[in-house]
Amino acid sequence: MVVVMQERATGEQVERVIAQLVEMGFDVHRSTGALRTVIGAVGGKTGDPRLVEVLDGVQEVLRITEPYKLASRTFRPENTVITVGDVRIGGDEVIVMAGPCSAETEEQVDASAAAVKRAGAKIFRGGAYKPRSSPYSFQGLGEPGLRLLRSAADRHNLKLISEVMDISQIETIEQYTDILQVGARNMQNFTLLRELGKSRKPVMVKRGISATIEEWLLSAEYILAGGNMNVMLCERGIRTFESYTRNTLDISAIPVVQQLSHLPVIVDPSHGTGRRDKVAPMARAAVAAGADGLIIEVHCDPDHAMSDGAQSLFPSQFDRLMAELRTIAPAIGRGICVEPAARRGWGR
Amino acid sequence: MVVVMQERATGEQVERVIAQLVEMGFDVHRSTGALRTVIGAVGGKTGDPRLVEVLDGVQEVLRITEPYKLASRTFRPENTVITVGDVRIGGDEVIVMAGPCSAETEEQVDASAAAVKRAGAKIFRGGAYKPRSSPYSFQGLGEPGLRLLRSAADRHNLKLISEVMDISQIETIEQYTDILQVGARNMQNFTLLRELGKSRKPVMVKRGISATIEEWLLSAEYILAGGNMNVMLCERGIRTFESYTRNTLDISAIPVVQQLSHLPVIVDPSHGTGRRDKVAPMARAAVAAGADGLIIEVHCDPDHAMSDGAQSLFPSQFDRLMAELRTIAPAIGRGICVEPAARRGWGR
Amino acid sequence: MVVVMQERATGEQVERVIAQLVEMGFDVHRSTGALRTVIGAVGGKTGDPRLVEVLDGVQEVLRITEPYKLASRTFRPENTVITVGDVRIGGDEVIVMAGPCSAETEEQVDASAAAVKRAGAKIFRGGAYKPRSSPYSFQGLGEPGLRLLRSAADRHNLKLISEVMDISQIETIEQYTDILQVGARNMQNFTLLRELGKSRKPVMVKRGISATIEEWLLSAEYILAGGNMNVMLCERGIRTFESYTRNTLDISAIPVVQQLSHLPVIVDPSHGTGRRDKVAPMARAAVAAGADGLIIEVHCDPDHAMSDGAQSLFPSQFDRLMAELRTIAPAIGRGICVEPAARRGWGR
Amino acid sequence: MVVVMQERATGEQVERVIAQLVEMGFDVHRSTGALRTVIGAVGGKTGDPRLVEVLDGVQEVLRITEPYKLASRTFRPENTVITVGDVRIGGDEVIVMAGPCSAETEEQVDASAAAVKRAGAKIFRGGAYKPRSSPYSFQGLGEPGLRLLRSAADRHNLKLISEVMDISQIETIEQYTDILQVGARNMQNFTLLRELGKSRKPVMVKRGISATIEEWLLSAEYILAGGNMNVMLCERGIRTFESYTRNTLDISAIPVVQQLSHLPVIVDPSHGTGRRDKVAPMARAAVAAGADGLIIEVHCDPDHAMSDGAQSLFPSQFDRLMAELRTIAPAIGRGICVEPAARRGWGR
Repeated sequence: MVVVMQERATGEQVERVIAQLVEMGFDVHRSTGALRTVIGAVGGKTGDPRLVEVLDGVQEVLRITEPYKLASRTFRPENTVITVGDVRIGGDEVIVMAGPCSAETEEQVDASAAAVKRAGAKIFRGGAYKPRSSPYSFQGLGEPGLRLLRSAADRHNLKLISEVMDISQIETIEQYTDILQVGARNMQNFTLLRELGKSRKPVMVKRGISATIEEWLLSAEYILAGGNMNVMLCERGIRTFESYTRNTLDISAIPVVQQLSHLPVIVDPSHGTGRRDKVAPMARAAVAAGADGLIIEVHCDPDHAMSDGAQSLFPSQFDRLMAELRTIAPAIGRGICVEPAARRGWGR
Repeated sequence: MVVVMQERATGEQVERVIAQLVEMGFDVHRSTGALRTVIGAVGGKTGDPRLVEVLDGVQEVLRITEPYKLASRTFRPENTVITVGDVRIGGDEVIVMAGPCSAETEEQVDASAAAVKRAGAKIFRGGAYKPRSSPYSFQGLGEPGLRLLRSAADRHNLKLISEVMDISQIETIEQYTDILQVGARNMQNFTLLRELGKSRKPVMVKRGISATIEEWLLSAEYILAGGNMNVMLCERGIRTFESYTRNTLDISAIPVVQQLSHLPVIVDPSHGTGRRDKVAPMARAAVAAGADGLIIEVHCDPDHAMSDGAQSLFPSQFDRLMAELRTIAPAIGRGICVEPAARRGWGR
Repeated sequence: MVVVMQERATGEQVERVIAQLVEMGFDVHRSTGALRTVIGAVGGKTGDPRLVEVLDGVQEVLRITEPYKLASRTFRPENTVITVGDVRIGGDEVIVMAGPCSAETEEQVDASAAAVKRAGAKIFRGGAYKPRSSPYSFQGLGEPGLRLLRSAADRHNLKLISEVMDISQIETIEQYTDILQVGARNMQNFTLLRELGKSRKPVMVKRGISATIEEWLLSAEYILAGGNMNVMLCERGIRTFESYTRNTLDISAIPVVQQLSHLPVIVDPSHGTGRRDKVAPMARAAVAAGADGLIIEVHCDPDHAMSDGAQSLFPSQFDRLMAELRTIAPAIGRGICVEPAARRGWGR
Repeated sequence: MVVVMQERATGEQVERVIAQLVEMGFDVHRSTGALRTVIGAVGGKTGDPRLVEVLDGVQEVLRITEPYKLASRTFRPENTVITVGDVRIGGDEVIVMAGPCSAETEEQVDASAAAVKRAGAKIFRGGAYKPRSSPYSFQGLGEPGLRLLRSAADRHNLKLISEVMDISQIETIEQYTDILQVGARNMQNFTLLRELGKSRKPVMVKRGISATIEEWLLSAEYILAGGNMNVMLCERGIRTFESYTRNTLDISAIPVVQQLSHLPVIVDPSHGTGRRDKVAPMARAAVAAGADGLIIEVHCDPDHAMSDGAQSLFPSQFDRLMAELRTIAPAIGRGICVEPAARRGWGR
């Protein structure tokens, strides 16, 4: 860190700061100028900069390194590509995950899987355990729901992603799904993140609605530090003063994260807007901005969905959206969900 | 809810909306004016208003009731007073909870308890299980820490509050503490809230940094709905664009919550500002605005605290603050931490 | 407006509310249910709903109409197309405005105009009067700057847009430019807006960094109400807790505004991100989401620009971006800056 | 500024950064460590740090000095006390300014002045020129309103503050008032600020609803730099995600500004909350946190006020509030609006 002393700071105050930094394990470099003293501190463990900030004579304390390591592009300059069977996330192709908010019945799950497969999705999404703000709302089918999702995914040759809310669910969900999802409210559930670091399945970490990009990357760091290098990030909207949309989908987070980190970035326009009629424009925007993938709620019959029907696309809307995305992806040197035979020669 | 149709909405569109509302279990009242139709819907279960919002011809959907019941002043007009031994939270006296961020050693715990008791605190605070953003940081002492806290509290005749992070910890923590605390990051950990509804100990729910007042009251509702009526709320700062302070302590939430709800409101100026030198002004402001209590970090030796030292008060600072608060409290017809013999005749 | 009374509201309280509404000029409709009374009020002038909100017994006051009229799609269902010579803003073609932040020298202005014309821009942008946060910064060339801009625009067959900061500048700027721009900090300079309502030139209103979409449309309303119907809106980023980018460009505002209003929406990715390397992804996202146009800072030599060099594109970067945009636009049934001969058969 | 290079930055990239800094007029100090190079730059003019930020190999650019000088406590360590006749703002006494939102009639102005004087206010407030979001709303009486305000202030031995919206109004308003107020929407109207730097009257600058504390101090700097050293600041609420109150009054800004600057800080709880029933708690909180003064809307008949009636106190409410404030002020070593004879011996 860099400690900037006040213009009137005394020699004793400077000494006190240096002593504190040394106690925190830093090597200290002092520059005294005509106007003020600046102290550089390197090599220490990540100490709480506020311990220095509250000392007398200190003007400001500036951190000079990002607090995450394994998630950083400095650690790994090339993009991480996560392989799930024959699906490659973070490569040349923009990957689309789609499906209903929750598994409800065998028919609903199967019809939804068929619809998203037909339109070109590669990964099926669906919840079996749901975080709900009211105790009286539908809480998900649990393991029987997972069984329905897995069987529909297999029938339609799709991979499967589903949310895990608690460490007690990990073992069960791992048996059924290909990717584990951490929801926005659990982004700082450190117990859960640590446990997922031991999993052999890829994990997708959603950004909390008030999480900075740095906090989000730190949550990914928890999983990476546990030894699981297959982590992808998912932007799903932040809370701002604007209340017309449920959240403000932060499209600029896509290029920012791609600069800071090597991990793939997925975008969720369904939760990011909360309204069906805004999903398609924001999905197109995400691909145009360079997202590595999308996760979209599609339901065979949204009017009767047991949760989030208002933000779920009808299959025909999803078909049209996929066609639009196929036009956009080449603008950034990528393709989208074309059959293997047709997929050749894209550079990035 | 009230559904406002667009000026050009057709009769069919109106019928479609009514059909949807009836399907959701509402009784419907239709008012047709010169310019537009407004549909009132009452008596249904709490349905997702977005299901109506996305229908053709709908201008806007307005919710007319708060979604919480037991936490509302409509349900219980008089203030809830929570009794913990001879301490009454929500009554005429402003209650101060104080102590170190974490239990570290027997000496540190005891010295801190002695200091806060001497100054007039009634409840001792201290953590044994800590949520930390880095996996390499001090994680708390666990049960031995609770033992130290309990024993110091008893020695100095203080009640004890400590944080519970996970349902697996409830049983242990309940044995040692008088009040259970839910941290800001767990405010929407619904599994934990539901389980605390079964506890016989009072619970203090901290507001999440981006939680609206309504969401905060809904989290309290989870505990109340489980049968535990001894719930208090704790404001600890919200995230805004202003980054000079760690968070923006929302002092106006105090009178707002007191209008909407009967539950006591505590304020945490330590986490709310993140800086020792801002704790006293904000503690004074909270009492002046009508807070039922404060929770403040005080450490016998903040410079060597294992966590949050920068926001912990020195005992002498806490003494001075308590004296200031004693001057302020009578302005709103309350007293603060005076010995029982001296405490007579306050009206509110 | 709709007034929802508290469950325990007395008959007298209801009467008091009705009297207030009648005094405000509303026709009142009262519905009394088993649980509570709801009062509908229509036809009054736009009264301050807080006058009712503070009355005893009132639970909530809900506004049922947007406060703007002329800017609303209800008033005018079809899109407004603004014609500036042979350029049509809000039509099938996505219009790109580009140029330097400020006019500096004849060479710089001409070279920049040549570069943006070559790449396909239709409108030249450049400032002659600059709002600067420091009194010591470059304040713009004033009228001589306008002369340079106009002459370069004419030479390269471009239309011209430039910012007006004060009513005293309107007359001068109108002589040189085709479109007048209101900056974000002036979005609520009502004196200026009112005066622009009398202008015969189109006006582009930038969104304030903390303006809601409703406030933004109200500012447009000021100009429309003055009789100038050629108003376009410009999204340029809102202030949020995320500080990695200078602002958070609110891409979702594009479809939201297009639903609420008939006015064209332009997007400014240069100010919206503040960093050159984020301009292209956000420009692509804006077009993919359906923006009617873009306004982009391009400078012939950004390293030596007198203002905003860090967010100005090099001409070669702008060329590449325009090529990408030409791939994206057809995905939403639009074209972009192609010469008239080539432009046929686009539906929207 | 301090430039932190990336770990992999090449020697050439470092040289390029140094060249840019030198061109910007800085003296450069280079520290090369095992891991990375850090470049310190001092003595230059305030350059745009983004010009360095966009260079290859740069990790981060940290500013090491606040951009304001005259407003800073470094420039002037002791508090500024502004003298208006026998009223001293920023001294031992907390000064209360009160009065109606707008001047309406002679009777209303006089009755309001009498009421606030009786309760202990020292300065009368009232608007003659009003910024209104709708063109159809009451726009203020203009100069005749100023005449009413001045005459009532004189009759009741009060000083007068009123808002100036435009440079064309300065000359007129200066003739009638003792203090000029800059409204929140004009906080970055640089033309107006510059002109007020030439005035001989004290100026109160309200914080914009989305202005950082730094931006607010920069606006004060504009006036100070023009030679007018009698500047006071006014906190009146910031825009956050919480919409229950109109704005979130940022009480913590009081101690923060008092640490950074020597200028007095006034708080406006009327606009800060927008609701009469929240004004008193927030006024008490402001004084308890150390505010140098308050500005409060009081109307002799709020129910019939032509603007902002919902947030105006009744005279009896204002009386009660003043009594509460007199109890609180001594807690921070201050007094409040006591007659000169009674005012002795307060330390701060």
